[in-house]
Amino acid sequence: MFQDKRLLIYAPGEFGRGHSKTAEGVLRYGRNPVVGIVDASRSGTCADVIGIRPDVPFYPDVASALSAGPQALLLGTAPRGGRLPAEWRADIRLALEHGLDIISGLHHVLADDPEFRALSARHGGTIFDVREPPSDLPVGNAQVLSVPAQVVLTVGSDCAIGKMTASLEIEKSLVRRGRKPLFVPTGQTGIMIAGFGISIDRVIGDFMAGATEKLILEHAPGHDIVLVEGQGSLLHPGYSGVTLGLLHGAMPTEMILCHQPSRQFIRDTTMPIPPLPEVIALYEAMTLPLRKAKVIGIALNCFDLDEEHTRREIARVQELTGLPTTDVVKFGADCLAEAIDKARA
Amino acid sequence: MFQDKRLLIYAPGEFGRGHSKTAEGVLRYGRNPVVGIVDASRSGTCADVIGIRPDVPFYPDVASALSAGPQALLLGTAPRGGRLPAEWRADIRLALEHGLDIISGLHHVLADDPEFRALSARHGGTIFDVREPPSDLPVGNAQVLSVPAQVVLTVGSDCAIGKMTASLEIEKSLVRRGRKPLFVPTGQTGIMIAGFGISIDRVIGDFMAGATEKLILEHAPGHDIVLVEGQGSLLHPGYSGVTLGLLHGAMPTEMILCHQPSRQFIRDTTMPIPPLPEVIALYEAMTLPLRKAKVIGIALNCFDLDEEHTRREIARVQELTGLPTTDVVKFGADCLAEAIDKARA
Repeated sequence: MFQDKRLLIYAPGEFGRGHSKTAEGVLRYGRNPVVGIVDASRSGTCADVIGIRPDVPFYPDVASALSAGPQALLLGTAPRGGRLPAEWRADIRLALEHGLDIISGLHHVLADDPEFRALSARHGGTIFDVREPPSDLPVGNAQVLSVPAQVVLTVGSDCAIGKMTASLEIEKSLVRRGRKPLFVPTGQTGIMIAGFGISIDRVIGDFMAGATEKLILEHAPGHDIVLVEGQGSLLHPGYSGVTLGLLHGAMPTEMILCHQPSRQFIRDTTMPIPPLPEVIALYEAMTLPLRKAKVIGIALNCFDLDEEHTRREIARVQELTGLPTTDVVKFGADCLAEAIDKARA
Repeated sequence: MFQDKRLLIYAPGEFGRGHSKTAEGVLRYGRNPVVGIVDASRSGTCADVIGIRPDVPFYPDVASALSAGPQALLLGTAPRGGRLPAEWRADIRLALEHGLDIISGLHHVLADDPEFRALSARHGGTIFDVREPPSDLPVGNAQVLSVPAQVVLTVGSDCAIGKMTASLEIEKSLVRRGRKPLFVPTGQTGIMIAGFGISIDRVIGDFMAGATEKLILEHAPGHDIVLVEGQGSLLHPGYSGVTLGLLHGAMPTEMILCHQPSRQFIRDTTMPIPPLPEVIALYEAMTLPLRKAKVIGIALNCFDLDEEHTRREIARVQELTGLPTTDVVKFGADCLAEAIDKARA
């Protein structure tokens, strides 16, 4: 798709403020060179905000970043509902006028936008709408049960809580243990990182489980473990249907629960997140009798806690649930990889 | 849309054989005149198969039914995955050549088919793809909690088990009790019957709950009870995501569980349907803390049992669950309407 292109990441006013997980994911795990980040509310470099990539500076807009030589503009924040904010148009137009590709995970299909399509045709930049699913998806039917690999799904107490990151860190730890894992992306950022995948939240309801199944069936061969990126949460009133489609399509052999200790309420709601043992019980109850699965470890997202508080939270959750617990960004995912290894019959 | 048009119902080889719930629903509850049913595997009239509408004869194909004067061909069976069977094309072409409208609930959008579109333009028949959702749907966010009406959702131990029928029969019983109910359709047949609605299983994952919410918010005013047609089942590996999107979008105040005593396995799978108390517990566990809801009655679909067996099953399930139980087609829905009335605080 867009391997090796030099990226300019677009996150105006949002970088590191809770809605830029796409931008941050590509910076942490992506393989492309990154020449800069557009966010007028920031100065300095990426490292000043998320502690990595001091080579990546901020720019106030696309115009001022063109001298750094980007080949593609990657839209790195996720506006609510996936629509295109009106104030982004001028920057996208400018990028296309300079022949850049556009990489987008928005619901709004940029390649269908007449103005963008015309600019793309005139100046040669390609528009990649990574969220657009293939059109020939099947209805799910538990075909994954025929795959010999372990299937580990990350699930969450809420949406946007670290499921992709947990899957990617577990992948690294499993490689070190000599396993042959495969990260299977189900959302735009994961697809941007891995170069394949289907945005399950963009798939028509009847085919969500089937799309998940298809991804696993096609890519599992050659791997002894498939790490499926989870989406949403069974507890989020807007996105829970996607989460269940993914759970019943992936038919995991094990689950890893992702949680953020400082988050008290389900995002966009006034609903408190229930105690973790209840969340675990809910996910386990919703696995089908065809293949019941357990949550076998916890990935805590303690990005907003200092090290002492993080260790205290890890100890508390480990005590509460009896499960191996870590913050995969701060301390790696080795204990989760070990639990996954042990769970293999 | 297509009020008052004389319908020819298309169900080749399938009428009354388990995949023609659209055809049967329109025959039982629709308001349009019906001139015939296309099914070469049947002879006689509709009444010979489902016991109603002796005025509606079978025809072997569209050509032989044209003399009956249909104004619209309604596609009345649901092929797996919603695709258009290749062998239907000639009949649809013939109908369009004779100026008939086409009413379709398939995933395959007939109005986008170049051949059908051209015939529609040339001969004046309109193509209604009732499954196509509106494009401006929101993300769900529990807005339904602001609606003062009771919200009753039909849920199922499996898909295609009688949820729409239960909602429609409950509507009739509630009218007799002096309530002002509204049937809110969420699938193609319901839309064909009620003249409005959104096919939730055709909505993109992220917007399923939002679409449900939107339907209720727009149509609830003037009604003291909203009867939302359920879809799929939390236990069906292919469709469960749609079911949960609908459950969290509708945020019901009460649920009615639909079940078919003779069905042992979840459709398309080798998975036994769990005992009903487990199914009930699963649905209740999956209602969100924002508004927990109970299953308060059972609608059994005993179409394939004689009256004695039906009564025995009703008694058995009532004993097992402690809940009012009926077969709404054979004995009406009065006991369910009464339970709904009583549940109003």
